[in-house]
Amino acid sequence: MPGVLITLEGIEGSGKSTQLGLLKERISKHGLPYVCSKEPGGTILGKELRSLLLEPHSSGKKWCTMAELLLFFADRAQHLEEVVKPALHAGQIVLIDRFEDSTRAYQGAQGIPEEMLSILRQLVMKDFRPNLTLLFDADPIKTLERANSRNSAKNGFAETRFDNEAISFHQSVRQEFLKIAVQEPERIFVIKADEHPEEVAERVWSAVKPKIMAAGFLLEPSSKPVRVLKQRSW
Amino acid sequence: MPGVLITLEGIEGSGKSTQLGLLKERISKHGLPYVCSKEPGGTILGKELRSLLLEPHSSGKKWCTMAELLLFFADRAQHLEEVVKPALHAGQIVLIDRFEDSTRAYQGAQGIPEEMLSILRQLVMKDFRPNLTLLFDADPIKTLERANSRNSAKNGFAETRFDNEAISFHQSVRQEFLKIAVQEPERIFVIKADEHPEEVAERVWSAVKPKIMAAGFLLEPSSKPVRVLKQRSW
Repeated sequence: MPGVLITLEGIEGSGKSTQLGLLKERISKHGLPYVCSKEPGGTILGKELRSLLLEPHSSGKKWCTMAELLLFFADRAQHLEEVVKPALHAGQIVLIDRFEDSTRAYQGAQGIPEEMLSILRQLVMKDFRPNLTLLFDADPIKTLERANSRNSAKNGFAETRFDNEAISFHQSVRQEFLKIAVQEPERIFVIKADEHPEEVAERVWSAVKPKIMAAGFLLEPSSKPVRVLKQRSW
Repeated sequence: MPGVLITLEGIEGSGKSTQLGLLKERISKHGLPYVCSKEPGGTILGKELRSLLLEPHSSGKKWCTMAELLLFFADRAQHLEEVVKPALHAGQIVLIDRFEDSTRAYQGAQGIPEEMLSILRQLVMKDFRPNLTLLFDADPIKTLERANSRNSAKNGFAETRFDNEAISFHQSVRQEFLKIAVQEPERIFVIKADEHPEEVAERVWSAVKPKIMAAGFLLEPSSKPVRVLKQRSW
């Protein structure tokens, strides 16, 4: 496929959404065509699944582990078919906030056997993988402070129910992400996320630029440097 | 598990819902404990998936084949965990209007490879199977007349979107059901469904009775015969 798929991964509060915004801005300044999406909920139908997966149900009922896993993959199947693959075929740079590594890390941290995840990955994705995955790595104690202050600003509502899990869970998720990065060093670029956003953005660009140039995209010269706005909401 | 799982399968309009009602009545008259459920939508969370799967979305968007399949299995995983297995453990007779054979038949008729279905079946159900499956077999041309007149009575709304598919699709579904019945004759009891409901109900009972007696249920004598009410809605 002529496009490039770049996914952004990391625990909550790791700054990936901020960095996604900065990356979009940079790509756009270079005159490159891009599409920005997210999982779960990257399609109109997937948004319904996102609510079912991430918002507490009024009945108080929770999905069992297997149902939850299947719903994440249903969302992904729809997203791949309706958004991701058509955009790649059309030669776009596709940026996704969370993708398959999040399923592996979050479900893996909940004790779902890797074999089960790999069966679903093979079924839904076959050999399809991102060209580049940016893994924003940070200490959960620091990132959760950030996520919590963001949630307080939204009247105390957690952005997702994962916010309310114990620190130890997020530490396991971080370890799961790092495990995948060790397994696939060609694809995954680990970025220390606890520095200043502008510095992190430079590291992001140093990983992204060669990938998009290798795919044949021509960068128009960008006159202005990337600008970080405080409190900007992406 | 000490209970007995009986599933009712067949194309739309094959009379399985009427027969489910009659079977419930009979089981109840014999003083036996039972639970009645359906797929999709046998749980509170599953009802949300049922709407997403069977009702047209306001956006006009449709699920891709793979997403649809995963959603059916997500609904099933939740149903097994929350309703079916606990009821069987508690020694109940569990009656389900549509189960895994419907997925095989309907998705199979849409060209989904059997291997894909079997991977998901193995993942979600392992060796779990109904003790008895009643397959109501009838000619789609006749059953669709019935389904359509039922839908007209509901202000022209199709009960599910499958009602609107072509006759040839339902003929394929029927063939898929019959194929499974040939593969698993021990489990599946095929019942000609185009006769009078009372006669069909007798055949149902002749299949159900030995299964529940073999499972150790004691039938209290039922003084009254099963009664069929015209236009009764179950």
